[in-house]
Amino acid sequence: MLKSSNLRIDLDRLLNRIETLAQIGAIDGGGVCRMALTDEDRRGRDLVVGWMKELHLDISIDRIGNVIGMRAGIEPAAPVLTGSHIDTVATGGRYDGSLGVLAGLEVIATLNQANLTTRKSLAVGFFTNEEGARFAPDMMGSAVHQGVFEVEDMLRIIGIDGSTLGEELDKTGYAGDTQTGAFRADCFIELHVEQGPVLQTGNYEIGAVEGVQGISWTEYRLSGTSNHAGTTPMQLRQDAGYVASAISVEARRIAKSMGADQVATVGVTELSPNLINVIARAALVTVDLRNTDEQKLQQAEHSMADFVTEICNSEAVTFESRTLARFEPVEFDHSMVKLVAETARSLDYKVRKMPSGAGHDAQMFAPNCPTAMIFVPSRDGISHNVAEYTEPEHLRAGADVLLQVLLAKSREG
Amino acid sequence: MLKSSNLRIDLDRLLNRIETLAQIGAIDGGGVCRMALTDEDRRGRDLVVGWMKELHLDISIDRIGNVIGMRAGIEPAAPVLTGSHIDTVATGGRYDGSLGVLAGLEVIATLNQANLTTRKSLAVGFFTNEEGARFAPDMMGSAVHQGVFEVEDMLRIIGIDGSTLGEELDKTGYAGDTQTGAFRADCFIELHVEQGPVLQTGNYEIGAVEGVQGISWTEYRLSGTSNHAGTTPMQLRQDAGYVASAISVEARRIAKSMGADQVATVGVTELSPNLINVIARAALVTVDLRNTDEQKLQQAEHSMADFVTEICNSEAVTFESRTLARFEPVEFDHSMVKLVAETARSLDYKVRKMPSGAGHDAQMFAPNCPTAMIFVPSRDGISHNVAEYTEPEHLRAGADVLLQVLLAKSREG
Repeated sequence: MLKSSNLRIDLDRLLNRIETLAQIGAIDGGGVCRMALTDEDRRGRDLVVGWMKELHLDISIDRIGNVIGMRAGIEPAAPVLTGSHIDTVATGGRYDGSLGVLAGLEVIATLNQANLTTRKSLAVGFFTNEEGARFAPDMMGSAVHQGVFEVEDMLRIIGIDGSTLGEELDKTGYAGDTQTGAFRADCFIELHVEQGPVLQTGNYEIGAVEGVQGISWTEYRLSGTSNHAGTTPMQLRQDAGYVASAISVEARRIAKSMGADQVATVGVTELSPNLINVIARAALVTVDLRNTDEQKLQQAEHSMADFVTEICNSEAVTFESRTLARFEPVEFDHSMVKLVAETARSLDYKVRKMPSGAGHDAQMFAPNCPTAMIFVPSRDGISHNVAEYTEPEHLRAGADVLLQVLLAKSREG
Repeated sequence: MLKSSNLRIDLDRLLNRIETLAQIGAIDGGGVCRMALTDEDRRGRDLVVGWMKELHLDISIDRIGNVIGMRAGIEPAAPVLTGSHIDTVATGGRYDGSLGVLAGLEVIATLNQANLTTRKSLAVGFFTNEEGARFAPDMMGSAVHQGVFEVEDMLRIIGIDGSTLGEELDKTGYAGDTQTGAFRADCFIELHVEQGPVLQTGNYEIGAVEGVQGISWTEYRLSGTSNHAGTTPMQLRQDAGYVASAISVEARRIAKSMGADQVATVGVTELSPNLINVIARAALVTVDLRNTDEQKLQQAEHSMADFVTEICNSEAVTFESRTLARFEPVEFDHSMVKLVAETARSLDYKVRKMPSGAGHDAQMFAPNCPTAMIFVPSRDGISHNVAEYTEPEHLRAGADVLLQVLLAKSREG
């Protein structure tokens, strides 16, 4: 019999599943548009659930639409859990999220083929609306799963297209019965593409993720006065569009002044009436601030809030601000991070311990069970983009490390 | 018989026509959305043409949809022409444009009632797409009418909603047979709301407009790289949204640094994909620059062009720029301006000579015939806004001055 430490995943089978899932919501350039709880998301869910059934997993679906496929172990203990998400941003890649789910299934397939039963149960999940691109906040499903948010509050959320989350969830058929907030895993481990340039730059194959940046999302709705672009003296303007632009430029200034750990992005800007010769009456902007240090993140938030108050006063524009998401920086379990790094080295991969610049489902598990993540390189650091790409050999590396970490954790007594 | 210098317009009849036309495309707050060559524009045209017929005007429609209603005089000379436009911006008021057309009809109604025949013919026109809010450039119909643009070029223009101007014109039924570019008026006089605060501030009832600001409209299409807002270091970003914002902030800086005669507006900003956690791959912005001095206007254009080149280089964003409209400042005919001022004073109105901050159809006539404009106050200078308002007594003042100026010009031998 094959020693389990010599078990390896089947790269072709994994690539085939990645390719098949990427056809659902495929867009030009090799990317994917499968935003949360759209029809494309539903079709993606159906495909993955079909695979779970083929692999004889015991499937449960909770009230926010998280799907968990369980492979029973010898002991009735809490399961060792892996997984990620299958929703994407509007112009997303094919690896972000999907890799972690499909590599989990590939681990199950490998164990099934080897007829290997683990001591603890093993489970693979995908969590609703990780991206937050259609419904804020992001990491919603995993947050509800681990009791951070109440499911009822989330079901009422209105999306960027005016739809209500609960209604859209109902339409997909994935509003399940399982209660949320009570599931406790033995541990959680998530494989994901890095979405940044660090691993590629240093020629690393594996990142052992030590923690996640804190995230602060704020939406500003600005109200000025619509007026004629030619006849309104500059000093009499109440230009909501100008204020929106000034906020975006200030976000860049704050990030630059605070150094490498602080990033700031204004990804949304909408003017109304958005006409060439009309001063904007209203504007909507979002500010995304991230830092691995909570104190610095708060400093960035305060700088931005002060600036908005000041610029609105000087332009006689009023504003309403709303926090769309706020997560403190997260530190992963040291022994889990060490296990990832040692497992990668034992498989002859070059590994780097690093923080995550993006938010991930794993961070919702970190307060409740030992948690860590495995990163594989993203070519040129590109992500949330149709050009997102990870080399097949890096996909293999990540999935094999995931397999051995899951084996190590599920066989622990 | 009443002396013609004692003739006065009927304010109630004028107000009634303004109110009736304002019902077509009416929006909340008392404003109007009747953008060029929409179904609302067609219905507005039908209404005004119906009134022209009731007033026994001889109607001609040219290939770009300009409508001229002629009242024959004793002599077969070129007609004395008045008029303006009935299209609006998306959130427009009820006086901008419409006043000049309906006051022209009110003058005709007053002359009909008095049974007064003029030596020269009198004509009232409304010109297609003055606003340029759906199809750039603005003042399109009058420009084609006076041979500044070729009708064929304009018919091919694509609107902000992706529609083609020629097709939309055909749908309205106002693609006429009359050739454009050949019509020569004896003179042109346009009544319009000021759309700025100058008359109200000085308690003037009438503005005798001496000329029009030069206008420069440029569209910038910016192309960067879509990427993850959390994992992409600031110095590696190619953020088209940031560049768009920086252009808007720079437009404000240029206007402020050049003093009171320079205005600058960024009324359009669109990001793609426009998501909170994605660095914008593409952005669209428009820059509207205006100055009464051509040299200064060119200086503002050069400052902006230099800035765009520089910021795009520093952000590794590429751009394409396109001139959507460019009109040099216009000086009106001195004797016509003097006639407007003296007529207003003879009617006991307080009059101020002033430039126009907005572009108007009148400026297209200025190179070809003696041309001037009459302004009436706009409350708080508000325009291109549903709250646009002019006091009934100021509407009366403008229409009576228009009546007497038209009488003076049409009786000249």
